[in-house]
Amino acid sequence: MERIRIKDIGEHIGKEVTVAGWVSTRRDHGKLIFFDLRDRSGEVQAVALPNHTEAHTLADTIRPEWVITVTAKVNERPEKMIHPDAALGHLELEVMNITVLSEAAELPFDIDAELNIDTYLNYLPLTLRTQRGRDIFKVQETLIETFRTQLRARDFTEFQAPAIVGGDAEGGANVFRLDYFNDRSAYLATSPQLYKQILVGIYERVFATPKVFRAEPHATSRHLNEYSSLDFELGFIEDHRDVMAILTELIRAYRNALVERHSDVLERFNVSAPAIPDDIPVVTLAEGQEIVTERTDEDCVGEPDLSPAHEEALCEYAREKHNSDFIYVTHYPVSKRPFYTYEDESTPGFTKSFDLLFRGVEITTGGQRIHSYEQLLKNMQKWNLDPNAFRFYLQAFAFGMPPHGGCATGLERLTAKMLGIRNVKEATLFPRDMNRIDTQLSE
Amino acid sequence: MERIRIKDIGEHIGKEVTVAGWVSTRRDHGKLIFFDLRDRSGEVQAVALPNHTEAHTLADTIRPEWVITVTAKVNERPEKMIHPDAALGHLELEVMNITVLSEAAELPFDIDAELNIDTYLNYLPLTLRTQRGRDIFKVQETLIETFRTQLRARDFTEFQAPAIVGGDAEGGANVFRLDYFNDRSAYLATSPQLYKQILVGIYERVFATPKVFRAEPHATSRHLNEYSSLDFELGFIEDHRDVMAILTELIRAYRNALVERHSDVLERFNVSAPAIPDDIPVVTLAEGQEIVTERTDEDCVGEPDLSPAHEEALCEYAREKHNSDFIYVTHYPVSKRPFYTYEDESTPGFTKSFDLLFRGVEITTGGQRIHSYEQLLKNMQKWNLDPNAFRFYLQAFAFGMPPHGGCATGLERLTAKMLGIRNVKEATLFPRDMNRIDTQLSE
Repeated sequence: MERIRIKDIGEHIGKEVTVAGWVSTRRDHGKLIFFDLRDRSGEVQAVALPNHTEAHTLADTIRPEWVITVTAKVNERPEKMIHPDAALGHLELEVMNITVLSEAAELPFDIDAELNIDTYLNYLPLTLRTQRGRDIFKVQETLIETFRTQLRARDFTEFQAPAIVGGDAEGGANVFRLDYFNDRSAYLATSPQLYKQILVGIYERVFATPKVFRAEPHATSRHLNEYSSLDFELGFIEDHRDVMAILTELIRAYRNALVERHSDVLERFNVSAPAIPDDIPVVTLAEGQEIVTERTDEDCVGEPDLSPAHEEALCEYAREKHNSDFIYVTHYPVSKRPFYTYEDESTPGFTKSFDLLFRGVEITTGGQRIHSYEQLLKNMQKWNLDPNAFRFYLQAFAFGMPPHGGCATGLERLTAKMLGIRNVKEATLFPRDMNRIDTQLSE
Repeated sequence: MERIRIKDIGEHIGKEVTVAGWVSTRRDHGKLIFFDLRDRSGEVQAVALPNHTEAHTLADTIRPEWVITVTAKVNERPEKMIHPDAALGHLELEVMNITVLSEAAELPFDIDAELNIDTYLNYLPLTLRTQRGRDIFKVQETLIETFRTQLRARDFTEFQAPAIVGGDAEGGANVFRLDYFNDRSAYLATSPQLYKQILVGIYERVFATPKVFRAEPHATSRHLNEYSSLDFELGFIEDHRDVMAILTELIRAYRNALVERHSDVLERFNVSAPAIPDDIPVVTLAEGQEIVTERTDEDCVGEPDLSPAHEEALCEYAREKHNSDFIYVTHYPVSKRPFYTYEDESTPGFTKSFDLLFRGVEITTGGQRIHSYEQLLKNMQKWNLDPNAFRFYLQAFAFGMPPHGGCATGLERLTAKMLGIRNVKEATLFPRDMNRIDTQLSE
């Protein structure tokens, strides 16, 4: 008999079906042996009765996480036995036959218990099997898919950004070095930025979802050494606000997709869909610092950047005054942004750049970029960068580039904030930090 | 006036529009100055007449690849002036006004000329602007999007595979080493294989499209040091043929998407859509070697693998005898496949594995995997691999895994073969090989 998905058993009430999956729990009530069976589509309770001798004997041996195929009759439960919280709580499988596909070792802990983060991460092949683990990365999949679908609908072209690069594109220090051929070094891309810009010269509007790499010696709840970047870039803009307008549309699309497809997950995580007013508040860095100074005891006016505490204070303001879980901060100083950032002629020293803050943390950085070849060369000198190292990139500008801009959103941070997850590592499938690649490096 | 896309000007005949883009060519006919303007949507001829003095004077200065905004009246061309080969060959823009957004340096060569591959690659920011360059990566985008859409429709979950790994997953030698923290080494993933398998334990059916890395010191027309892998894996299979069945459906979907969306590209590349019969031929390696031996003067029966020449000979056979551009080769010897490959009980020494060959070259490798923890441990010993280095991966099997399998297709090779491109580097956006990261490393 062909296997069906557990969630479809309701279409076969009173009939025999074959299902397969993992045993979640097993409860031995003497003559009746109950177990929950889980597949990719759902979970249902099964019961082995003594009259099906062979199946009953086998049911006595199975343990959590064993993989089995079950032939069973689909029964409706008596009214008082219905589990109203479970999707298939009104049904039960009466087991006719069991085939064991794979046994499982005894679990090292109760996987549904709240584990400390290191234990949780050390056992991901097991702990991801929980409802919570599975939920997180179904939401992440929806976010990245929505990003692509929305941009494609706006005439953007997807490209595959390189991970191995010849040098540090942005002149920062936090770059992983690797052994290339003939005793040369290569590096891991910190962003697809330069390639995005080159491709604006080809396709005008492009996006990519590459892994990017930061050799920052962090072990915090908000940093990762490898993460997924949702990057887009487009030409023929007026200024950075055209980029923000598209980003806002994406944010709304994420919210809508979550509400439509994952309302059950939001409920299980006990979070509401993000509040997005008709106009997401926009403040300049200077205005933001005044707001922070007013609301806290700390005077941060004139500082070149926001601290994590300032970002939190600004988000509180946005929530209270604008009923918004998001706030844009624009016009960071030239000194705090990369060499290719466009300076705002009307506020010299400050850039047409922005960050988007979401529930206390920056999730997106973007802005308008310099499109003039001469201006880029000038800035490279100012930043002490060698134009020869950028000669490939500079071709795009030598041969004609429109005004353009774009931004990059961290997929894992976005996922974490959408679900109210405190540590971004829990929203990263296989997180890498200075102490961990899969398992702890100190082990 | 709001900018419209060039391909939409036909909706504004007799009216004024604003368009923007790159100047492709310019032809000075004395009083009449013609130029072609290109944006992401198409290309059209514009003419500056002497009566619009300012625009005419500017039109005299513009050169190829300058970026301009043009306000113009959309005119229908007289019948004898229609260019039947151009999509907008029946229309012409009568230029009213020109704004220069960006000038361009004189081009170093005629970019539409056939360049040698190194010159072509050294100047990608310019050479990708050709119709040919743009075509290739629009087709590539369609292929990767089709891969995702088709698998999602079959209940597969997308995941983000890590690029940084703790060791070489498959025990081969061609792995890039990088400096990690505290004087440790890390490595670049040669494949998402082990993570795919772990995730079969979570979601049953998964796919990913990561960059993968091979430190092979090649500089050939078929190898890359970084490429995009179209990976999928699924549980609860009978054997490798279930994987092949899904792969065949994907192949058909690629073909259909190309025909539906890119028939113009196929025409420009002078290739036909691939021939896929109802049954793609399937031969075991041994059968394939007999066919090769019959068709060539070379006796390869009993060798452990196919050489490139053998792959070509087999593809010729498939084309001639089965009218198929594809052929499956199954049952490679245990010694030529990774430690996790499932041995076929009915032909000991040979595996439930397959390659898919397409127009002379292998584009996909796959098969059934071992799902028994004990069998995996045994094989690791046989392969001289340290189980402790795989302890994260092994958890998936210790805690219950169904029979499963999957495969990986090289996106760039697939793109190249679909379009009849000889050197896979031309089908790679920013190819890396032992001599090149963007520009040639010897320079």
